[in-house]
Amino acid sequence: MADVTSPAPLALPDVAALVVGVLGGTGAQGRGLGRRLAAAGHRVVLGSRDAGRAAEAAAALAADGLPVEGADNAGAATEADVVIAAIPYAGHRELLAGLAGALAGRIVVDCVNPLGFDSHGAFVLPVEAGSAALEAAAVLPSSRVVAAFHHVSAVLLEDPAVTSFDLDVLVLGDDRDATDTVQALAERIPGMRGVYAGRLRNAAQVEALTANLISVNRRYRTHAGIRVSGP
Amino acid sequence: MADVTSPAPLALPDVAALVVGVLGGTGAQGRGLGRRLAAAGHRVVLGSRDAGRAAEAAAALAADGLPVEGADNAGAATEADVVIAAIPYAGHRELLAGLAGALAGRIVVDCVNPLGFDSHGAFVLPVEAGSAALEAAAVLPSSRVVAAFHHVSAVLLEDPAVTSFDLDVLVLGDDRDATDTVQALAERIPGMRGVYAGRLRNAAQVEALTANLISVNRRYRTHAGIRVSGP
Repeated sequence: MADVTSPAPLALPDVAALVVGVLGGTGAQGRGLGRRLAAAGHRVVLGSRDAGRAAEAAAALAADGLPVEGADNAGAATEADVVIAAIPYAGHRELLAGLAGALAGRIVVDCVNPLGFDSHGAFVLPVEAGSAALEAAAVLPSSRVVAAFHHVSAVLLEDPAVTSFDLDVLVLGDDRDATDTVQALAERIPGMRGVYAGRLRNAAQVEALTANLISVNRRYRTHAGIRVSGP
Repeated sequence: MADVTSPAPLALPDVAALVVGVLGGTGAQGRGLGRRLAAAGHRVVLGSRDAGRAAEAAAALAADGLPVEGADNAGAATEADVVIAAIPYAGHRELLAGLAGALAGRIVVDCVNPLGFDSHGAFVLPVEAGSAALEAAAVLPSSRVVAAFHHVSAVLLEDPAVTSFDLDVLVLGDDRDATDTVQALAERIPGMRGVYAGRLRNAAQVEALTANLISVNRRYRTHAGIRVSGP
């Protein structure tokens, strides 16, 4: 056990009133982030290509008393202040490009890990744009793209028995207001800390590091996250 | 502050008797790792292209009572059980290729971060082999290449006032005995933990993550490391 004492917190904005949309809100990661942010008091709109499936996923959370609704992906985008893209990498570019209008002017949080899997575990898929986040930025020129939430275990997010997390959310982007907002949003979830970790051009390795955490999980039988430490 | 409680330790070998060679032992990272491993009781041979400069660097540590000698790089390789390549990325491939014979049969620990720098900070350099570690493995087919020690601040390593570290050393490789040995070696330094983090094919992002830690350092004015956390 070690105390993780650094980096020192910097002042972040009050984001309590923000509405959060989740593209891919019927997947485990999207449902899990939706659950946690709704539990923190945010109105959450889960989006899906199929509005009916989104409504079902939302109803399951609403049954737990959480302020969650469902919509199609475009609806989840236009209802929200901050939109989390929790979608598979397959189809990532096309899905976001099709929502460019709905996402214009909004903060878009890309948490996509472009990974493949074989008998040795996870490996990194090549992305022509350099990373999923840069790909998002390329097709969403009118949005403020931030990369974050790559290392959060969907299993833990969805487990109601987990009441607090032990991880830092690395937040990357080229717009300070947007990264500050997403850091503050991460900190709405108990135990999570939002740590600024560079510009979007350095997102590829943060996405790819998820492959290493999967290796850690296999070796040590855990759900690994990371903490940033200092002296 | 948070307790980092996971992953659970697995049994590692006793490496106390191993001799450590350091290629690039006159640079800050090489000198710093040499200092710390010598302080842990290892015989350390600092190597350099210029044996005279290596002898000077070694003498500075020996003056502190540490068991450190200097040699040319080939000498540092052949004297050692484990050889740490703490060399600049420029010339990395050529330097290692020229030492392939001296390094045959040994564990070679690559801690090289292929990074460039501009006014926005650090960015990742393209590496044809995929990563510095894979490049090392390609030119050292008779060595056991392990990637580790990428995220250790040379400034802290060299600061005698720093008596303990707060970071995990991510260790990657395809040879379990070799990664276990390097994990154990990392744990000879107070406060460091060696964590297996995947096969060599997943080293690129661990090397590149150093760019993000540099961004953290700039934003938070710290010397950031990482810890792996679990539930």
